[in-house]
Amino acid sequence: MWERGLVLSAPGKAILHGEHAVVHGKVALAVALDLRTFLRLRPCAEGQVCVRLPGVGVLRSWDIPSLQALRSGFAADFDESKPPSVEQLDTLREFAGIAAGATAPESLATLAFLYMCLAISAKYGDVPSMDILVWSELPTGAGLGSSAAYTVCLAAALLSACGAISCPLKEGESTARWTEEELMLINSWAFQGERVIHGNPSGVDNAVGTWGGALRYQSGKITPLKRVPALRILLTNTNVPRSTKVLVAGVKEKILKFPAIMKPVLDSIDAISEECQSVLEVMSANPSPEHYPVLEELFDINQHHLNVIGVGHPSLDRLCRVTASHGLHSKLTGAGGGGCGITLLRPDTAALAVEAAKRDLCACGFECWETSIGAPGVTLHSSSSLKAEVLHVLTES
Amino acid sequence: MWERGLVLSAPGKAILHGEHAVVHGKVALAVALDLRTFLRLRPCAEGQVCVRLPGVGVLRSWDIPSLQALRSGFAADFDESKPPSVEQLDTLREFAGIAAGATAPESLATLAFLYMCLAISAKYGDVPSMDILVWSELPTGAGLGSSAAYTVCLAAALLSACGAISCPLKEGESTARWTEEELMLINSWAFQGERVIHGNPSGVDNAVGTWGGALRYQSGKITPLKRVPALRILLTNTNVPRSTKVLVAGVKEKILKFPAIMKPVLDSIDAISEECQSVLEVMSANPSPEHYPVLEELFDINQHHLNVIGVGHPSLDRLCRVTASHGLHSKLTGAGGGGCGITLLRPDTAALAVEAAKRDLCACGFECWETSIGAPGVTLHSSSSLKAEVLHVLTES
Repeated sequence: MWERGLVLSAPGKAILHGEHAVVHGKVALAVALDLRTFLRLRPCAEGQVCVRLPGVGVLRSWDIPSLQALRSGFAADFDESKPPSVEQLDTLREFAGIAAGATAPESLATLAFLYMCLAISAKYGDVPSMDILVWSELPTGAGLGSSAAYTVCLAAALLSACGAISCPLKEGESTARWTEEELMLINSWAFQGERVIHGNPSGVDNAVGTWGGALRYQSGKITPLKRVPALRILLTNTNVPRSTKVLVAGVKEKILKFPAIMKPVLDSIDAISEECQSVLEVMSANPSPEHYPVLEELFDINQHHLNVIGVGHPSLDRLCRVTASHGLHSKLTGAGGGGCGITLLRPDTAALAVEAAKRDLCACGFECWETSIGAPGVTLHSSSSLKAEVLHVLTES
Repeated sequence: MWERGLVLSAPGKAILHGEHAVVHGKVALAVALDLRTFLRLRPCAEGQVCVRLPGVGVLRSWDIPSLQALRSGFAADFDESKPPSVEQLDTLREFAGIAAGATAPESLATLAFLYMCLAISAKYGDVPSMDILVWSELPTGAGLGSSAAYTVCLAAALLSACGAISCPLKEGESTARWTEEELMLINSWAFQGERVIHGNPSGVDNAVGTWGGALRYQSGKITPLKRVPALRILLTNTNVPRSTKVLVAGVKEKILKFPAIMKPVLDSIDAISEECQSVLEVMSANPSPEHYPVLEELFDINQHHLNVIGVGHPSLDRLCRVTASHGLHSKLTGAGGGGCGITLLRPDTAALAVEAAKRDLCACGFECWETSIGAPGVTLHSSSSLKAEVLHVLTES
């Protein structure tokens, strides 16, 4: 079916609870964010592979024979269980004209594409001539898993194009998902792409992009939650830049400075993640409104704890205050120190109230998206099922 | 010496760390607040005991013979190790014309005076004709130990008047304090007065009023800190009324609802009190400026924790925000839910900066005092050592 082209998408991710504490062995809950990255794959006749990423300004195309020649130089050295080697990445950089040490999104996105394309075709057979267009609703570099959503989409598209996985979308269906076995393959190749981009990623972001819903992460172990409700949220980017590395180091320093004060705070955050997980599991069986005040209270408590461990920021305080003035509860999500905040909306929160909150948040210079968490993982779409905006971008490009 | 009259004072108290956690067996640090209650005792010739408490609108006088008659009705039943009996208090209420169950400050202050006067004179000999005037810098009912400062002053004055303790103020000295043994006697009688007023007090407030400085309190055990530095603070009353009982019950409910989340928070608060105690002890030996950022950080952390356990209030958030805008760090002190906040000032905080912060706090409808903690306990004063304002009140009344 892919011969007629295909459209697929993968969700971004947000950390619901456990950011930073996860570095110290505690549980984190990551959830799929219904801000998605879309990939359109179209066959083309020219013996070329063309990649367009308008969001990061990439427009590249390569002859299939030169890709084959490049690949053969590596012998059978592509294995999705091993990280890409330094030599492989150096060779790919040279091929693509990317400077050593380049970290701009366009460089890393191009490098990840080349690595995944070569490795997948080495293992499963040549990729056909094709034109790949990727467009995302996710901001990049905001800790929302945009790189993983990209590599999950790429993995699914490339594996489909090589015939390594099926095309589960049936005539007349609007969306379809792959089997568990196929999802595991997609996830493992998406993780390889993440390794190209991030060096040593946790694997959480690509797992969320692949399976969607929610998952718990602790000491390297990723466990998807069986069932999760979709919850309405506002996602707000304060647009305050921050360094995750500096923030993580600051937390470590605080723990060393005040161990007896800080360690219990990490324990409390751990217990919040556990409590939230059990509330989400109960909610998906019994979606009664009584659960929302508990989720809100957990947001409030964790936001205080994140301030205690030193990853708050005046912009995040303001975000919380603005949403509180509309009766809404927020916490930072991800690294903190600026970056994004997440605000829970109840099912019965009126659209007008949400609009008013968004207006006030935008007036602070923040960007704001009304979306949901617990969204499905990587998904195939029929064109007719796409939102008008997405369809417009994918067909006009 | 008291025949020429005497003036003495006792400090109020503030909780530096550990409010609410103390109810659950954790350490609290209580400190003497240099907002003081002053008592002037003057002999008078008319065979009368006269008590004037202009702050709570009390002006009462009794014939000494009728007090003696009242006292003899109780036999030898006054013992500072036992709480005042219901019968004693009922008899005193009837004598003073106070309705059963009256809880107004003027009723309780009158009752405590009568009890202490009768009990002390029963044990140590008749009180002479005297005129007692009490005036306080402390607001009443704000959790600042105003009742204990009152009963400590009364105990010291009545024990002095009966000759049970000495008058340590020497000619030419501006202030003097009693011996440790005398302070223990003052404290035990002040505690009896507190029992009349509060029923079942912890004894912390009268201990702070007696010994001053700082003390730790845990599971009923009160331990004065050996040395404490005097620290400049702003004390702010939000004037938001609250019920300590309701707040304490709310914390208990939260702990029962989320034990795994809340118990570590109490542990963290406990560790804050311990850390603060050791910083204060180090500071009094080595008063270097490096300690202030630590004390400020402990304030910030504990304020977040107090919000987590549910005893914050928007007025307290505002107080913290206003002082933060002046680079100052605050936390609630006492029961929370409104009430008072304490703001640390560094030794080098400029007077202009303090004035600006006070102005902004007053603009919120708050009352604000610049004072210090770690103040001396019950103290005898020469008239010449009193501040003009205090001297004016005590001599013009």
